[in-house]
Amino acid sequence: MTFDQQLQQKIDLKTKPIRALGTLEDLAFQIAKVQQTLTPQLHHPTILVYAADHGLAKEGVSAYPQEVTPQMVYNFLQGGAAINVFCNQNNIALKIVDAGVNADFPVHENLISSKAGYGTANMLNHKAMTEEQLTYCFTAAEKHIESLVSSKCNIVGFGEMGIGNTSAASLIMSSLLDIPIAECTGRGTGVDDLNFLRKQQILQQVHANHPNLKTPREILQTFGGFEIAQMCGAMLAAHKNNMLLMIDGFICSSAFLVAYHINPAILNNAIFCHQSDEQGHRILLERIGARAILNLSLRLGEGTGCALSYPIIQSAVNFLNNMASFESANVSNK
Amino acid sequence: MTFDQQLQQKIDLKTKPIRALGTLEDLAFQIAKVQQTLTPQLHHPTILVYAADHGLAKEGVSAYPQEVTPQMVYNFLQGGAAINVFCNQNNIALKIVDAGVNADFPVHENLISSKAGYGTANMLNHKAMTEEQLTYCFTAAEKHIESLVSSKCNIVGFGEMGIGNTSAASLIMSSLLDIPIAECTGRGTGVDDLNFLRKQQILQQVHANHPNLKTPREILQTFGGFEIAQMCGAMLAAHKNNMLLMIDGFICSSAFLVAYHINPAILNNAIFCHQSDEQGHRILLERIGARAILNLSLRLGEGTGCALSYPIIQSAVNFLNNMASFESANVSNK
Repeated sequence: MTFDQQLQQKIDLKTKPIRALGTLEDLAFQIAKVQQTLTPQLHHPTILVYAADHGLAKEGVSAYPQEVTPQMVYNFLQGGAAINVFCNQNNIALKIVDAGVNADFPVHENLISSKAGYGTANMLNHKAMTEEQLTYCFTAAEKHIESLVSSKCNIVGFGEMGIGNTSAASLIMSSLLDIPIAECTGRGTGVDDLNFLRKQQILQQVHANHPNLKTPREILQTFGGFEIAQMCGAMLAAHKNNMLLMIDGFICSSAFLVAYHINPAILNNAIFCHQSDEQGHRILLERIGARAILNLSLRLGEGTGCALSYPIIQSAVNFLNNMASFESANVSNK
Repeated sequence: MTFDQQLQQKIDLKTKPIRALGTLEDLAFQIAKVQQTLTPQLHHPTILVYAADHGLAKEGVSAYPQEVTPQMVYNFLQGGAAINVFCNQNNIALKIVDAGVNADFPVHENLISSKAGYGTANMLNHKAMTEEQLTYCFTAAEKHIESLVSSKCNIVGFGEMGIGNTSAASLIMSSLLDIPIAECTGRGTGVDDLNFLRKQQILQQVHANHPNLKTPREILQTFGGFEIAQMCGAMLAAHKNNMLLMIDGFICSSAFLVAYHINPAILNNAIFCHQSDEQGHRILLERIGARAILNLSLRLGEGTGCALSYPIIQSAVNFLNNMASFESANVSNK
């Protein structure tokens, strides 16, 4: 028997009807396959929350002022945000990465300083970042992952915070998948009708101002936030280290989409945690053939979808390791 | 301000956009409202798994032989089933109730002996249980809940095991909601095409043989398994004690449906944990205006949906209690 056959047999001989654990069976199969063992283990789960500011925010694409980005970083460091609460509950380590917030922070044990700039350029007229900044993002992100590897972490979740970053995500998705920008644009976190129309117009203008983008890197450099670029780099590095990747909502998925276009094999290691209500996310997941674990109408980011689905991922590993088989439990099979 | 307004304000002033925690906000609101406090707590979560046999099983409505019911009870007691694994992981107490399995069990600390019979009568020609048996089920179930209350448990999940019990659930749903039996009938756990057709025919025959059922109790007596009747009684008792109720998949929901027809206020305390792939469950939830937390394509029962969604329910309580507000974290609101 091949490894895959042995693994499938182990799943099928558990005391339950075939496929009765649904998504958990898919997760158990995926995780065991990535780790190439019939007894996979999750070690030191960690969520990296990447924060950065966006030059486009000054065009009014978000319902919140830009100052909220650094304020939320302080909130993360003080333990008051949703992601803190959920990580504490589920024993997930949490690190905040300053990938390019428009503010300076004091040293803090849970803050990784990885600043590619004080916010990106306004992509209405410029590329969001320089070639050098993009390279910095990838190099820095590799180090974040190396540090996790040395702490024996083998499953990493990605989250983000950055006022204006749904706009960046929509533009990246539209360019990479060649889908009209309107279909990729949602309300972000709480934009009203009038401002939503305005947001769509601005994004169409940005899109029109940057024709003929060719490579995933070029698209990332043009539209990406520093947090998106560093998440993308970290995902590629985590895959290279054979870690499991927990992907949060729409913005995180846009970073994944770039990584996937650079290295499609990364899909094997990716666990999609939450399907956001944000327009475009459903389409994005469909395009790469992915199905998310949860659909709780979250629209927060921060990696909250990863933190909330982690217990279910753990349950998938646990049933594979700890459930009895028909034989060991003396239960009649069909 | 009314209590509801104070509660909504507390949720809305957390450091997140309005409604950004989606389903978790609904759960937090519901739980706090049931407990009538802005700082709700979950104590000693417990899952009761009700097991029983069904006279109709001998007509071949299930893919598994009836002997699997007692075998699975032993598996629960030995800790080898899926529900054991998930309860262990999430610190949920687990009790198995022998509501009427066609076998005797030795005394065990996690087994509650509550036998209404050695399986129900074959409802093709008889009512599944006598009036006395139904009364016994309700009385016994009340004691199960009293025992949980005295152990300070305030959130109880319901699960079940019983070869043939999707048939009972379909018949109950069809009668109570006046929906054709075909729309309420699914494959249970792994029935193939030919046997599925046979199952539908048998259920139609059963339905035709019991015309003019009037009250929820009469419907329960006619079609119900002992596990369904005891779950129903336990749900009513748990509601009377102001506990939170975690409702698992299709069979558990059919028990809830009877309870709901007896006392509609029970809906306030019910948390629907998993939307099963079983045909009918989606329709049932829609009819009572409920939305389940998870949709993981589980088709196992045992209360697995409750155990898997418990961490998310806990997260709802935790964000309400532990997240910072805009004011306390100095974050700018919209």
